Amino acid sequence: MTHAAPPSPDPFFSSDSERHARALKHVHRVTLGGPLDLELGGSLSEVTVAYETYGRLSPNRDNVVLICHAISGDSHVARHDDGDDPGWWDIVVGAGKPIDTDRYFVLCPNILGGCRGTTGPNSINPATGKPYAIDFPVITVGDMVEVQRRLIAQLGIDRLLCVVGGSLGGHMVLSWATKYPELVDGAIPVATSGRLTSQALAFDVVGRNAILRDPAYQAGKYHENGGRPSVGLAIARMLGHITYLSREAIMRRFDAQRFDARHVQTLFETKFAVGSYLAHQGERFVDRFDANSYLTLTMALDLFDLGGSPEVLTEALRGSTCRWLLISFTTDWLFPSFQSRELVRALIAGEKRVSYCDVRSDCGHDAFLLPNDLDRYGELIRAFLAHLGEPDEYPGDEQLPEPGGRDPGRQLPTSIFYPQRLDYDSMVALIPPGASVLDLGCGTGELLARLRRRGQRKIVGVEIDEEAIVACVGRGLDVIHADLNNGLPAFGDGQFDCVILSQTLQAVRDVKRVLREMLRVGRRGIVSFPNLAYRRYRAQLAEEGRMPRVPGTEACAWYDTPTVRFLSITDFTEFCREQGIRIHEQIAVDTHAGERIVDDPNLNADLAIFVLSG
Amino acid sequence: MTHAAPPSPDPFFSSDSERHARALKHVHRVTLGGPLDLELGGSLSEVTVAYETYGRLSPNRDNVVLICHAISGDSHVARHDDGDDPGWWDIVVGAGKPIDTDRYFVLCPNILGGCRGTTGPNSINPATGKPYAIDFPVITVGDMVEVQRRLIAQLGIDRLLCVVGGSLGGHMVLSWATKYPELVDGAIPVATSGRLTSQALAFDVVGRNAILRDPAYQAGKYHENGGRPSVGLAIARMLGHITYLSREAIMRRFDAQRFDARHVQTLFETKFAVGSYLAHQGERFVDRFDANSYLTLTMALDLFDLGGSPEVLTEALRGSTCRWLLISFTTDWLFPSFQSRELVRALIAGEKRVSYCDVRSDCGHDAFLLPNDLDRYGELIRAFLAHLGEPDEYPGDEQLPEPGGRDPGRQLPTSIFYPQRLDYDSMVALIPPGASVLDLGCGTGELLARLRRRGQRKIVGVEIDEEAIVACVGRGLDVIHADLNNGLPAFGDGQFDCVILSQTLQAVRDVKRVLREMLRVGRRGIVSFPNLAYRRYRAQLAEEGRMPRVPGTEACAWYDTPTVRFLSITDFTEFCREQGIRIHEQIAVDTHAGERIVDDPNLNADLAIFVLSG
Repeated sequence: MTHAAPPSPDPFFSSDSERHARALKHVHRVTLGGPLDLELGGSLSEVTVAYETYGRLSPNRDNVVLICHAISGDSHVARHDDGDDPGWWDIVVGAGKPIDTDRYFVLCPNILGGCRGTTGPNSINPATGKPYAIDFPVITVGDMVEVQRRLIAQLGIDRLLCVVGGSLGGHMVLSWATKYPELVDGAIPVATSGRLTSQALAFDVVGRNAILRDPAYQAGKYHENGGRPSVGLAIARMLGHITYLSREAIMRRFDAQRFDARHVQTLFETKFAVGSYLAHQGERFVDRFDANSYLTLTMALDLFDLGGSPEVLTEALRGSTCRWLLISFTTDWLFPSFQSRELVRALIAGEKRVSYCDVRSDCGHDAFLLPNDLDRYGELIRAFLAHLGEPDEYPGDEQLPEPGGRDPGRQLPTSIFYPQRLDYDSMVALIPPGASVLDLGCGTGELLARLRRRGQRKIVGVEIDEEAIVACVGRGLDVIHADLNNGLPAFGDGQFDCVILSQTLQAVRDVKRVLREMLRVGRRGIVSFPNLAYRRYRAQLAEEGRMPRVPGTEACAWYDTPTVRFLSITDFTEFCREQGIRIHEQIAVDTHAGERIVDDPNLNADLAIFVLSG
Repeated sequence: MTHAAPPSPDPFFSSDSERHARALKHVHRVTLGGPLDLELGGSLSEVTVAYETYGRLSPNRDNVVLICHAISGDSHVARHDDGDDPGWWDIVVGAGKPIDTDRYFVLCPNILGGCRGTTGPNSINPATGKPYAIDFPVITVGDMVEVQRRLIAQLGIDRLLCVVGGSLGGHMVLSWATKYPELVDGAIPVATSGRLTSQALAFDVVGRNAILRDPAYQAGKYHENGGRPSVGLAIARMLGHITYLSREAIMRRFDAQRFDARHVQTLFETKFAVGSYLAHQGERFVDRFDANSYLTLTMALDLFDLGGSPEVLTEALRGSTCRWLLISFTTDWLFPSFQSRELVRALIAGEKRVSYCDVRSDCGHDAFLLPNDLDRYGELIRAFLAHLGEPDEYPGDEQLPEPGGRDPGRQLPTSIFYPQRLDYDSMVALIPPGASVLDLGCGTGELLARLRRRGQRKIVGVEIDEEAIVACVGRGLDVIHADLNNGLPAFGDGQFDCVILSQTLQAVRDVKRVLREMLRVGRRGIVSFPNLAYRRYRAQLAEEGRMPRVPGTEACAWYDTPTVRFLSITDFTEFCREQGIRIHEQIAVDTHAGERIVDDPNLNADLAIFVLSG
C-alpha cells in the first residue's frame, strides 16, 4: 500500500513524486477477527484495516476522536512529524489545531472498499488468490462503520468522544451515531446529508457509466490482462472535481485566463485552462486510484439513504444519544445546506441536542478541506469538542456574575447595556425553572447562559449571525443557525415550554409569521420590545420632530438601525387581539428609572414584556 | 434530412417513432451563393441552409422575427398545422401566442455545423465526395450568424424586426445585434451570457473528452467503418441534461422514487430512477445527433467570448443600435442570471435601450422551453415585440389622462391614491424637460409614462417586482429588474440627469447606499418620502400612543408595512449635512390639504421632496 497525495483539493499541477516517497512507518494494519457479514448480503471472510493515529490515548481512554474520510481520502489525515507529508486535513488536525492532538487521540482508518490499505476490490480474495475485482460485494456505509467498530474494539477502545467526517465521511458519522449510539459522545457531520440529491446521484451515475462502458474495463476484470479503464476513471474524476468546487471558485481560478491552458501530458482536451486542469486531475487520479474501488465507494455513497421525508429521517436518527454539531457551507451545491437543515430538523424532532452552522463560504463542497473558512468551521469543531462530556446541568458560567437576588427595581445606573440586562432579568423571572426554552435571536447566548446557570436543562438558541453562533458553541450551548423571517421549520409543534423573543421582534420583517411560529413551537411565548409610545420618544417626535431612537440601538440612526418594526404597547395589544393571541401576563418597565410601571404603561414604560399563547 | 424530436425538454421515455413520420413538406432548403469564409480561417465552398417559416411576410417586409435555436434544436420551432408535430417552442410561437404568427413572419433556420439539414460535419464535402467529418472546420457563432444573414438576403429580407434565441441561440442574438446592427430592430437574448462560465465550459470539456476518447470515435472518421462513438456521445448528452435542469426540478422528478428505475433498453446503468432517465436520454440522443456536429457546436459555444470585463463587454456591444430585452431565470446555473446582468450593465454603459427581467423559476436553464413560467417570459416577449418599431418619442399614453395644466394646490379630495399623484406631479415639475431620468422603484411605470407623454426621451426604470416589470414592458418602457439594496451596479457614474426615488426610500433598508448610488449615477437626485413629523402623525404617537400610519401604506399596519425606514424632514436634512449631500431644492406638501407648505414644513407637511447632488 502506498499513500499518495491528499485526495482533495489537489494543488494545481503539483507533482506527486515527492509524495510517493512518503514513509509508511505511521500506517498500522490489523486484520479483524472473523468474517464480516454485509448489510446487503454476502460476507468478506477476512478484512484488513489500515489506520493512523495521532496524539496519546488518555488513561481513561475517553479522548478518542475518530475521523472518517471521504471517497478518495485515506488514513493520512495529518502529518505525524515535521519530516512527514501533509495529510488531507492538516489544517484541522494537529497540535493546537481545532482537533488538537495534544488533547485528543485521533484515529483515522482507511475505509472498507477503498484502495489505500483497507480491504477493497484490489485486495486479494482469499478464496481465489486473486484480486476481488468485480467479485467484491456491494457494500454500504453501514458496513464501513461496522469495520471501524471492530477496529476500535480490537484496539481496546470502548468509547468515542467524537466522530467527525465530511461528505461520505459525514454519512459515516450519521451511521455511527445511530448504529452504535452507546459508543459515541459527539458527532460532527460536515458538508453532508441524509442521502444524495438526485442531482448529485446523477453525476455519480454518469461517472460510473464512463468507467463501466470504457472497453478497457473488461467487465471489471481489467486486472487480468494488465489494463485499466483509465479514460473512464479519469472522466469520472473530472466530473467529480467540477462538483466539488463552487462556481465562484472555478471562475475565480480559470475565468480570467480561460485560454491559457497549461501543458499537460495527456490525451484529453487541453484547449481551455479549466480543461487542462481537469485533464491533469483525471490523469493523476488514475495513477492513485482503482476503478473498481471507485465504483464500490460511489455506489455505497449513492445507496446511503436515511429517508426522503422528515418523518423517516427523524425515525432514522431517533436512536442517537450523542450531542451533534452539523456544519454546511453556503456554496456547497453537491451537499447543499438545505440537506443539513433537514438533518437538524429531524434531530430536533427526536429531541437531540444539536448545534448547526451554515458557514458562509465561496469554496463549494471542498470548503471543509480548505483554510478559507477555517476561522469558523474549525473554531466550531474546537469549541464543540471542548464541551463534550460535560454534564447537561451546569454548575455555573464563569463569564458572567451571578444575577441572583438582584432587585430589578434597584439596578445600576442607566447605560446602553442596562435595558438589555433588565430585560434579561425580567425574562428569567418569567420562565419557570423546569421549563424548556427556545431563544429566538439568542445572540452570543447571554440569556441562555443565565438560564443554564439556574439549572435549566433543555435550552436552545436560534441565531442568524455566524460569529454569535461560534460564541454560543464556545459556551457549550446548543444553537441553530437560521433566519427568523423564514419561520421555524426546524422545530415541531409545542416542542418548548417557552419561546423567547428578547428585543428581537422589532428586527424581524415578517412579524406575523415569527409570532405565529413562536406560538406554534412554544406553549408560551415571551416577547420583549421597546415601546415607541414611551413619553420620551413621544416627546422626541412631538417636540423635536425627529424619529425616536429606541433602546439597544442608541448608536444607530433612523437610516441604519437594525430595527425595522416600530410599535407601541397599544399597537401590540391590539395586534394580539386581532390575531387571537392570548396575553397571559404583561410587564412594563421604565429602564431609565429602573422601575416597573403599572400606571399607563404605554406612556411611562420604554420596555414591554408580554407572555403569550396561541 | 429528417426532423427528429424537439431537442429539449425531452418527455420522459416518450417514443420518437411517431415523430419520425413527420412530413418534411415545411422544411425549405437553399444553397447560399459563393463560398463562406470563416472567422477563424478556412472556408466552406458551399453552404446549404434548412429553414422553416411561419405566418406571412408583410408587404413592407417589416414583420420578420428570426429565431435562433440552441445546440440540439432544429428549424421546427412550432407546428405548421394541426396534423404537424409540435415544435421545440410551440408554447411561444403560433397564432395568438407570444410570438404571434398572425402578426409576425417567423423564420427559423437550422444552424451551421448542425446535423438537421444545414451544412455540418455530416454533409458531403464537395472536394472529396465524402462527409466532412473531422475535416469540418472550426466554426464560430459569428459564422452561424453570417449564414443566416446570407439566407435572409437571399429571401429578399433586408430588416429583422427582432432576433430571438435562448442559450447558444442567445449568443447568436448577441452576435446578430452587434455584427449587423443596421438589420436588427429588436434583440431578445434569453438564458444566455457574454461567454460561458468556466464551470459550464468544464462540463463541455468533459463531454467532449468522453466522445474524443471513445475508441469508436476513430479520430473522427467513424463514418468510414460504419461505427459511431455512441457511448461517448450518450455520456456527453447525459451530462448536458443534468446541467439543463435545476436541482429543484431534478429532485422533484426523481427524489421521491429514487430506486424506481424505468425499464430502458440500454447498456448504461439503470439502478436509480435518474439513472434510467439519463440512460434513455443518452440513447435517444445518439439516434438523432451526430458526434462531430456535437463537437463542432459545443466548441463554437465554448469559443464564444464577448469579454470577461465590463469594459470589454461594453465595447463588444457598443455597435448595436436595436432595443434589447434580456431574460434570465433564477435557477439557471448553466447560464446564471449574473451573466445576463453583466450584459445589461454593458448595454447600459453603451447607452442602449434595454429591459431586463430575472424570471423567478425553479426549472433551471430549461425554463425558457417550458410552460411553467410562460406567463412572465412569454408576456415579456409579447409586450416587447408589440412596441418595436415605435418612435422613441411618444405622442401620448392612452392609459392615463393628461395631467398638464393642473394646479397641485387644487387637487382632488384626499384618497389613498392622492398623495402618490401629487407626488408625481411635483416630481415632474422638478424635472427639466430635456433631462434623462432614472426612476428607482418605478413600479408599473406611472411616473415614467408621464415623463414620456411630456416628450422625455431617455427614461429608464428600476424595479424589483416581476409583475410590475411586465407592466412596464407592456407600456413600451425600458425597465431593469434589480434590488436597490444591492446598489446600482448596472449604471455608470453620472449617466442620468435626474435619478428619482419616489416614495421608495422608506422601503429600502440600506438608505446610505441607495442615496450614495443615486448621487453617483445621477447629476441630481430627487427624493420624496413621507414626513413622520407631520402634525397628524405626531398626534397619533403623542395622543393615541400608536405608531403612525404613513401615506401610501394606509392599508398596512406597523407589522406588515413595506416601510422599514421612518424619518422626518429634520432627520433627512441632518442626514444630508452629515453625509455631505447638497440640498438644491426642498418642497414640502400637505397632501391632505393639497397645499405647498412653507411655514415649518417638518410640522405641517406630510410629504417632502428634495433635490440633491453629491
